[in-house]
Amino acid sequence: MLKKTWKKKLLSLALVSTIAVGGISTVLPEQEVEAKGKPKGKDKAQNVIFLIPDGFSAAYATNYRWYKGEDTVLDSMNIAMQRTYSANSNITDSAAAGTAMATGVKTNNGMISTDPTGKELKTILEETERKGKSSGLVATSTITHATPAAFASHVASRADEADIAPQLLDNDVDVILGGGQKYFTDELIDEAKDEGYQLVTNKRELDRVKKTNKVLGLFAEEGMAPELDREDTQQPSLADMTETAIDTLKKNKNGFFLMVEGSQIDWAGHANDAAWAMKDSEAFEEAVIEAMDFAKKDGNTLVVVAGDHDTGGMSVGGYGNGSANVEMLRDVTATGDYMASKLNKKRTNAKKVLKEYAAIDLTKAEVNAIKNADNPASSINQIISERASVGWTSTGHTGIDIPVYTYGPGSELFTGTMENTDLPVNMAKAMKMNFKPGK
Amino acid sequence: MLKKTWKKKLLSLALVSTIAVGGISTVLPEQEVEAKGKPKGKDKAQNVIFLIPDGFSAAYATNYRWYKGEDTVLDSMNIAMQRTYSANSNITDSAAAGTAMATGVKTNNGMISTDPTGKELKTILEETERKGKSSGLVATSTITHATPAAFASHVASRADEADIAPQLLDNDVDVILGGGQKYFTDELIDEAKDEGYQLVTNKRELDRVKKTNKVLGLFAEEGMAPELDREDTQQPSLADMTETAIDTLKKNKNGFFLMVEGSQIDWAGHANDAAWAMKDSEAFEEAVIEAMDFAKKDGNTLVVVAGDHDTGGMSVGGYGNGSANVEMLRDVTATGDYMASKLNKKRTNAKKVLKEYAAIDLTKAEVNAIKNADNPASSINQIISERASVGWTSTGHTGIDIPVYTYGPGSELFTGTMENTDLPVNMAKAMKMNFKPGK
Repeated sequence: MLKKTWKKKLLSLALVSTIAVGGISTVLPEQEVEAKGKPKGKDKAQNVIFLIPDGFSAAYATNYRWYKGEDTVLDSMNIAMQRTYSANSNITDSAAAGTAMATGVKTNNGMISTDPTGKELKTILEETERKGKSSGLVATSTITHATPAAFASHVASRADEADIAPQLLDNDVDVILGGGQKYFTDELIDEAKDEGYQLVTNKRELDRVKKTNKVLGLFAEEGMAPELDREDTQQPSLADMTETAIDTLKKNKNGFFLMVEGSQIDWAGHANDAAWAMKDSEAFEEAVIEAMDFAKKDGNTLVVVAGDHDTGGMSVGGYGNGSANVEMLRDVTATGDYMASKLNKKRTNAKKVLKEYAAIDLTKAEVNAIKNADNPASSINQIISERASVGWTSTGHTGIDIPVYTYGPGSELFTGTMENTDLPVNMAKAMKMNFKPGK
Repeated sequence: MLKKTWKKKLLSLALVSTIAVGGISTVLPEQEVEAKGKPKGKDKAQNVIFLIPDGFSAAYATNYRWYKGEDTVLDSMNIAMQRTYSANSNITDSAAAGTAMATGVKTNNGMISTDPTGKELKTILEETERKGKSSGLVATSTITHATPAAFASHVASRADEADIAPQLLDNDVDVILGGGQKYFTDELIDEAKDEGYQLVTNKRELDRVKKTNKVLGLFAEEGMAPELDREDTQQPSLADMTETAIDTLKKNKNGFFLMVEGSQIDWAGHANDAAWAMKDSEAFEEAVIEAMDFAKKDGNTLVVVAGDHDTGGMSVGGYGNGSANVEMLRDVTATGDYMASKLNKKRTNAKKVLKEYAAIDLTKAEVNAIKNADNPASSINQIISERASVGWTSTGHTGIDIPVYTYGPGSELFTGTMENTDLPVNMAKAMKMNFKPGK
C-alpha cells in the first residue's frame, strides 16, 4: 500500500516539473467549444466532483424545489438525462448503477465493479489515481455501501462489505468519510494509521482536520443518522464532510476526483418517507453548494450531479388531487421510523406523537390505521405522504430516466439522453485523460 | 377575415422582394454559437414545428423505449427540462400549460391565452402570422381542445369550445386538422369555404390534399379514435395529419409555425391505461419522425417536443417489483374502455375478452375483480398495468418537471431547467423575431 502512495507522489513531482518546463497552457491541447456555465478560458477539468443523490429522480427535484420554496442549486446547472438499466434488469440496483457510473460498463445487479463474468473493471477513480491525482469518497451510508464501493473496490456481491473496506485503503483513496466502523477491523485501522491517515470519529474532530493529506472518518457503526434524526448525534453533515474532503484533496496540484453520495434519499424512498426524502435532499443540496462554491472559485473543476435511479416511483401530487402540498413537510421533524419508535405498546399515543413530530391532527381513521398497521412506520409515512400529496408506486427502485446536472469545464459533454456508462467517459474527456471502459 | 389573409399575402410579397434585393444571407444577422444537432451554417429557424405529447413525462419516454425495443427519435435530440406549474396551482391543467407555452405567460388552470385577470395574451402562432408566416394546428382531440386552442384563441374557460372554433378561423390558421366537427356550425363551414379552406373529413380525402394553401380537416364528431381502436375508422393518423400539414405549410416562402398535439396520451394517463399510453406514444413518435425528416432535409426548421405535464404519475416498474415488463403491452390491441364494451351484462366473458384483446390469461382473482368493479375498464387497466409493472399514483395530472427535446437552428437555446413560459420566447429568438410575452 505504501508503494502505491509513493508512486503517486513521484507522478505528482514529475507532472509539476513538466509544467515548469513546458508552461501551463502548452501541457495539454485547448478545447474549442464554449459551454454554458463554463468558466471563461478554462478548457480542462483538473478536478471532478461527482455527487450522487441515491434514488433521486426528477420528481424528487421538483418536490424538493417546492419544499425549499425557491430555486435550488441544481436549477442553475446544465442538464442531460441518463438511462439507468443494468446488464440483467431494466430496473437497476445501486451496485450495478454505481459500477456503470464508475467504470463505464453495465453489469448485473448486486455486482461491484466487476463485469457479469466476474472480471474486475477499472474505475474512473483508480484511473485518476494513476495520473497522480488524489481521490475521496464521502457517503452517509456505510462507506463500504454499494455506491461508494463501486469507485474503489471489486467484489462479486455488494453484501461483502468486509471485503470492500480493505480495498478502499489498498486503492489509496485519500479521503474516506462516512459510516461503517463495523467493517474496519482494528488491524485495518492500524494499517491506515501506518499509511498516514488521520482518523476522526465525530464532527468536532472532522472540523479540526487541517494539515493532513489523508483522512479516514468513520462516524457511525453502520449507516449515519438520517438528517431528520441527527440532532442528538455528534455526526457531521454531508456538507461538512464534503467541505473537509475538498479542503484536503485540493492540496494536490495534480487535482483530485471526489465522489459524494447522499445515500439516504434512497432509504427514504424505500420507506416512502416523504419528509425524510426532502430533508436528506436538503442536506444533499448543501453538499452540492459546497462543491459549486469551490468549482466557481477554482475554475478547473467539473461538477456532476446524477441520481443512480429513482426509488419509490415518487410523484409530485397524486391521489387524484389537483395540487400538491409539499410545504407541509417542512414541519415534519422526524422520520416515520423515529415516530413509530415513540409509540407506546398499544399505540394509544399516535395522535400525540404525530402532533409533536409531524404537526398534524390525525383523524380517527388515521389513528386506527396506525393502531392496526403491521408496520406502524409505513402507516405513518403513508398518512404524511397523502397529506403532502406525494405519490408512490413502489417500495423498490423504478427505471425512469434520471436528470444529470453539470457545471464547469467539460460540462458541455453531457447532453441529450445518455447512458449511465457515458458519465465516467465524459469525466475522463473533461480531464483530458484516456479512459477505455472494460480495457 | 379575408382582410387578414390578404395582409399576410402582402407581407409575404414584401419579404420576398427584400430577400431578392438584399440577398438571403444578409437579411438577418448570423448567430455565432454552433449547437448540437444544428445543421451547419443554418443560423435562423424559418419554421418551427412544436409537437406536444399531452401528459408525457420522462416515465412515458422510458417506458415507450422499452415498448418499442430500441432508441426513439427523442433519444437523438437535445434535451432540457421545464417546470409546468400554473399561476394558481403547482399542478397545471392543459389550458394553463398550453397558454404558458403559447404566450410566455403563466395563467390560471382552465384559462385559454388570457391572463388571470382575463386580458387576452398574444400567442407565438399569432406573432408568426403577423410576420407573414403560415400556421397550422393538428390534434387527435377536438381541434378546439385546450392545447391547440391556446395557440389561436382567447377564452376565459376551456369548456367554451364553441367560442374557440370561430377564433381559429378568425386567426387565419392555415391548416386545422383534428376532431371536433360538432363545434363547427354550418355557417362556420361556409365561412371557411369562402376563405379558401379545402374541407376534408377522412384519411382518403386528406391524402388527396395537394394544391391548396388552407385545409380544414375534421375527422370526428368529438375526439378522434384512440390509436389502439382506430382500425375500423377512416381517420388519418397523427403522422398522416402532420405530413399533410407540413406539405401544405412549406409552400409559404416566409416559413411557418405548426403545433402538433398527441392529445390522447393524456387521456390514456387519466384512465391509467398503459397500453393506450404506449400506442398513442408510438403514433406521436411517428409524427415527430415526420417533423424530423422534414427538418433534416430543410435545415431551417426548429423542432421542439415537450409534454405539457405528467398525467397519472406513471412509473417504470412499481408494485415492489424488481423489473418492468412493458414489452407485454405490445400484445394489447384495445383500450380498457373498448374491452369493457365487449363484456356481456354479467361480465362472465371477462376471461375470453382479455385473452382476445390483451393476450393474457386472467387469474380467478382478476376475473372477480373485473366482475365486481364499479368501473370495469378501470379494473382491466389496473390488471394490465400491474402485469406490465407500470405504476400510477393518480388519475389526474402531476407536477414533475418535464423533458423538452429540440433539434435544429436555435436548439441550443433550450438548456438546463427552464420555465414552460421560456418555450415561445426561445422559439421567437430562434426565428429572430421580437416576442415580448404579455406585451
